[in-house]
Amino acid sequence: MSSTFGRLFRVTTFGESHGPAVGVLVDGLPPGLAVDPGAIQHELDRRRPGQSAITTQRKEADQVEVLSGVYDGKSLGSPIAMLVRNSDMRSKDYDALKEVFRPGHADYATFAKYGVRDHRGGGRSSGRETVGRVAAGALARIALATVGVRIAGGTVRVADVVAAARDWDVAEQNPVRCPDAAAAERMAGVIAAARDAKDSVGGVVEVVATGVPAGWGDPTMHKLDAQLGAAMLSIPATKGVEIGDGFAMVTKHGSETNDVVVDGRYVTNFSGGVSGGISNGADVVVRVAVRPATSIGKPQQAGKAEGGSTTIAIEGRHDPCICPRVVPVAEAMLAIVLADAWLGQRALRGRER
Amino acid sequence: MSSTFGRLFRVTTFGESHGPAVGVLVDGLPPGLAVDPGAIQHELDRRRPGQSAITTQRKEADQVEVLSGVYDGKSLGSPIAMLVRNSDMRSKDYDALKEVFRPGHADYATFAKYGVRDHRGGGRSSGRETVGRVAAGALARIALATVGVRIAGGTVRVADVVAAARDWDVAEQNPVRCPDAAAAERMAGVIAAARDAKDSVGGVVEVVATGVPAGWGDPTMHKLDAQLGAAMLSIPATKGVEIGDGFAMVTKHGSETNDVVVDGRYVTNFSGGVSGGISNGADVVVRVAVRPATSIGKPQQAGKAEGGSTTIAIEGRHDPCICPRVVPVAEAMLAIVLADAWLGQRALRGRER
Amino acid sequence: MSSTFGRLFRVTTFGESHGPAVGVLVDGLPPGLAVDPGAIQHELDRRRPGQSAITTQRKEADQVEVLSGVYDGKSLGSPIAMLVRNSDMRSKDYDALKEVFRPGHADYATFAKYGVRDHRGGGRSSGRETVGRVAAGALARIALATVGVRIAGGTVRVADVVAAARDWDVAEQNPVRCPDAAAAERMAGVIAAARDAKDSVGGVVEVVATGVPAGWGDPTMHKLDAQLGAAMLSIPATKGVEIGDGFAMVTKHGSETNDVVVDGRYVTNFSGGVSGGISNGADVVVRVAVRPATSIGKPQQAGKAEGGSTTIAIEGRHDPCICPRVVPVAEAMLAIVLADAWLGQRALRGRER
Amino acid sequence: MSSTFGRLFRVTTFGESHGPAVGVLVDGLPPGLAVDPGAIQHELDRRRPGQSAITTQRKEADQVEVLSGVYDGKSLGSPIAMLVRNSDMRSKDYDALKEVFRPGHADYATFAKYGVRDHRGGGRSSGRETVGRVAAGALARIALATVGVRIAGGTVRVADVVAAARDWDVAEQNPVRCPDAAAAERMAGVIAAARDAKDSVGGVVEVVATGVPAGWGDPTMHKLDAQLGAAMLSIPATKGVEIGDGFAMVTKHGSETNDVVVDGRYVTNFSGGVSGGISNGADVVVRVAVRPATSIGKPQQAGKAEGGSTTIAIEGRHDPCICPRVVPVAEAMLAIVLADAWLGQRALRGRER
Repeated sequence: MSSTFGRLFRVTTFGESHGPAVGVLVDGLPPGLAVDPGAIQHELDRRRPGQSAITTQRKEADQVEVLSGVYDGKSLGSPIAMLVRNSDMRSKDYDALKEVFRPGHADYATFAKYGVRDHRGGGRSSGRETVGRVAAGALARIALATVGVRIAGGTVRVADVVAAARDWDVAEQNPVRCPDAAAAERMAGVIAAARDAKDSVGGVVEVVATGVPAGWGDPTMHKLDAQLGAAMLSIPATKGVEIGDGFAMVTKHGSETNDVVVDGRYVTNFSGGVSGGISNGADVVVRVAVRPATSIGKPQQAGKAEGGSTTIAIEGRHDPCICPRVVPVAEAMLAIVLADAWLGQRALRGRER
Repeated sequence: MSSTFGRLFRVTTFGESHGPAVGVLVDGLPPGLAVDPGAIQHELDRRRPGQSAITTQRKEADQVEVLSGVYDGKSLGSPIAMLVRNSDMRSKDYDALKEVFRPGHADYATFAKYGVRDHRGGGRSSGRETVGRVAAGALARIALATVGVRIAGGTVRVADVVAAARDWDVAEQNPVRCPDAAAAERMAGVIAAARDAKDSVGGVVEVVATGVPAGWGDPTMHKLDAQLGAAMLSIPATKGVEIGDGFAMVTKHGSETNDVVVDGRYVTNFSGGVSGGISNGADVVVRVAVRPATSIGKPQQAGKAEGGSTTIAIEGRHDPCICPRVVPVAEAMLAIVLADAWLGQRALRGRER
Repeated sequence: MSSTFGRLFRVTTFGESHGPAVGVLVDGLPPGLAVDPGAIQHELDRRRPGQSAITTQRKEADQVEVLSGVYDGKSLGSPIAMLVRNSDMRSKDYDALKEVFRPGHADYATFAKYGVRDHRGGGRSSGRETVGRVAAGALARIALATVGVRIAGGTVRVADVVAAARDWDVAEQNPVRCPDAAAAERMAGVIAAARDAKDSVGGVVEVVATGVPAGWGDPTMHKLDAQLGAAMLSIPATKGVEIGDGFAMVTKHGSETNDVVVDGRYVTNFSGGVSGGISNGADVVVRVAVRPATSIGKPQQAGKAEGGSTTIAIEGRHDPCICPRVVPVAEAMLAIVLADAWLGQRALRGRER
Repeated sequence: MSSTFGRLFRVTTFGESHGPAVGVLVDGLPPGLAVDPGAIQHELDRRRPGQSAITTQRKEADQVEVLSGVYDGKSLGSPIAMLVRNSDMRSKDYDALKEVFRPGHADYATFAKYGVRDHRGGGRSSGRETVGRVAAGALARIALATVGVRIAGGTVRVADVVAAARDWDVAEQNPVRCPDAAAAERMAGVIAAARDAKDSVGGVVEVVATGVPAGWGDPTMHKLDAQLGAAMLSIPATKGVEIGDGFAMVTKHGSETNDVVVDGRYVTNFSGGVSGGISNGADVVVRVAVRPATSIGKPQQAGKAEGGSTTIAIEGRHDPCICPRVVPVAEAMLAIVLADAWLGQRALRGRER
């Protein structure tokens, strides 16, 4: 029923993968901020398909147009609508799938929900919907930068290959977006192997915010953890999320995982920068489980709309591992959650303290 | 800024752990449903402290009073306020902690957020806030039962002990609430050992909904996964959540994890009953990472409000493992998310009467 | 579907007129404010029935209990639940009305909406629901007072008697709550005449906020006018609202009604302190049309649930003119709208400017 | 802080009067409805400037482009973004106004709120923002038509000229949109006189919904009256609203204004189709006070940004009476409120499919 994320920094995406356009409406960006369209485009370019041999080869320019809310290079405080026209849509690729529910896809659930279905690609369930999130996230980053918050992220695991380092600059220099150069190469190999087998692989994306002051978030229903959980699990193809040490904490004792703050600084950060739902001043650390891409060329059983099943191989140009392209989306969602929490704290306490 | 969960089935908790009462306001329960106060009390009794040797020994009767929204045993369609008076509050236990930020707790972040702090227990961050959630969840269960949805859950891991079976009736018969009787005994041993060492241990809670029809949820920002992520990570002491196979999928291939639906039934359920954010008719399966309880008797370093640090041992009667008591809370939140999604689908597609 | 008013200062009432209690949950009051329960009780006492010969003779003590969100006399920033037990409920008065839809009442519409109905009084539609609003408004006043905003109001018209003066202190000294002492006496006479004729009369209530800085509100959907319109028309028995000169402006020219601001002060205030939906620094002035009370002793035709009609006379102790008791409610709603707008402006711009 | 109206049928407008475009995002339209772009364009054409000698002579084609949410002529259940490019913007007309706060306009309040200002026209406060409302209202009408609800409206008063008849077909045949042909001529004369005097006049717009079933709306904060109040007072240049007999009821007795329902039909309709906040099956009738247009050619005093005042005459092509163009906007807002209430009732009581 709702395509909106956030209470004060409100982000609503629109557009189907094979319709005229995708886009986003951002309501709540404070006025007077310098909004550089180049910064928005930069984030969209990071998300764009066709960036390397291990991502989809679709070519989409994804040029953003800012329709409102910015005048003379400054935000007006009014809603900012941003539009990206769709192109390079090979709807024919999907004709064969008209009467089939693709394995792992949302086709069946979508049809059950709406009773109608645009069989050309995933419609709203397509990864293409994330274009709007990334554009909105670029605005959130602009807002957050004014209070010293910075966002980074990368692919920290692909199948069994785990990144040992966290150098986010390195992450931007390899096609896997892995913050560990050595692991990046092994990951690329694993992805290429999956691609060659007409299959796909999963992985883990980590995003981090530095400079978040203590006091953002909420102690109960709107815990920062909860908002991060919602944000990350609203990204297509994600099925798990953890804050800080997350699932690794389940095998530990309290004496090993209790973070200690002395003189306003946390000595440890098992909690990923969030204590009791409220930012505590340490880095906010979030990891997301990304499932293997569901569109694969390998023949699979698939249910038919009319009943019974058949065997299909999904043609088209799809990502063998979505992680590299999830990175900018997860960063955007982290930025959106934090921008919303920031405004919430301003409403509660007035000026920054 | 907000203590409310849900858009159509709206749940707002209130109350501090050491104030006069805790409670909840539920807005959106459809009219005409039979509301048995005994069913609400039953769920509260499952959450109540003092149930066994491995939970806190605090004695709280937690008798619920229904203040509104029910007449003659039936819901009126108006807000239902429910109240539980606090009792057995040993505020003196907390006097020593007045000038200290307890390790792992929200004390520091709370103070940073609000500038004021009720040092007697966790206030809103206390597990006591979940009383209201459980009462609200009982109403959500009543609503869901009318459409054939049932909720169950249990502790499926404590430290390194993992449940092999999923017999939810068994879970109600042991103090760990483990659905595997053999594992339950080993888990109880691990918890008792932690307790004796004045320490605590973490674990994993799993909750499951059966009978959910395909079509509930949303394809983008309000994905069912996202709402479940928010719901679970809004529970105190949780730091991770996964839907279906979750993090286990990151090491798999698409050909191993793509669920297939044939003739309206899913052959596999790696996705935990949710495809593209929308329920697909299979069981909804959610797992939550529960950190080791932060209140431990073992001496720990702790920052002082005035600066510097000291060593503290947290006295009082605390849970050495929170999982058994998180189970009814996680079930409640699952019920709340599903009730909300159900009403959303009715708004979208419901038939007029 | 929703019993909540406000986005950041969120007020949710609960309770039926003949259930155990009525009350309110306020979420969003900033922390650290001095909350005097006496100030809340004072507002409730102004709303309480039985204050004079021209209001209902029901006796309700309406003692408020603050259940949460306040510690040591200060707001904690968490939800504040407030409770007033019902008493002096003569449900028997309503037995005769079980199978009848009272004229002018919500009985028929309520039954159509919910399919169930508590025939004992108006349930949620009863004026008793406003107890919660007044308690919430008292908190809003506390918040607004910290930034210099003050609220007043009174009955400015009863039938054809119109107040010529606006002395709000005078309004508190007569039972009609009229800010014009001479008019108050004539109004009292008109009300007494209606009461003696077992009938009722309508009137107009005016509420005013002084000290509102320029810049609160919103230019489009959430115009301050719009929020005031929603707030006032959510009060039982109101059927019209106007801001500033309102309907009187329709016979004027632009050259007669364009307010001019010079050196940060408005020379005129036809707009009632709101320009384009945003406060402009002048007094915020709102008037509400209050219909004649629907419960009258005079025999009237009334539809029967089983079909056809009958003649009824509504016994019980009802207000012949609701205006005096609407005054504190309208003031409360004005305070709630402004508190919400204030927090909104803080979110947008940070500290007060 | 928010540009959104509605909870389930959610309408968010965007765009400044002198920016690249205006538009709207509608979230919540049920799937499977036939969406005819011609029906949307038809409503926009009714709102369009330059329709007659008594409206502004600006020429704006206002061609709508549907960007999402519709496939193959049917609604998909996903957000529908609609865009209208701006044209014929004579920004130069506004250069003289850069340092002046126009009388009656939102210039000063806007600047106080945002600290920045697009002096070229009203920005978000411009009547141009209503383009999006009208497009959204067209979708609401489509939805409502499926359950038999129809919307009409007209100008029922200009200055002292009051319409005696309510023939909504007639309203579409004269430039004033008055449902009384004789009054229409006199109104046109009054408007022309104001225009010739470089001045403007106010009036009253009435909108009516027929076919609304009993049971839509809410008994407390979200009364249908309240939503209508918010909707109408969110339209630029409106300063009052009344439901049914509204302000005329203040001089009446209860025995004269209590509506009676017999056999499911209301015998009278003083309440304008809404009892206790809930639709009662009678026609929903709403009237809106429209102030004289603030942009007038007559010289007026105006405050200067730097302090002090000057005399200005507002050049450009402005409406001498806004009522004819407010009609389609008020109809749109009525449709939006009802569509939202309809979905709310489905959520509350809808039957599963």
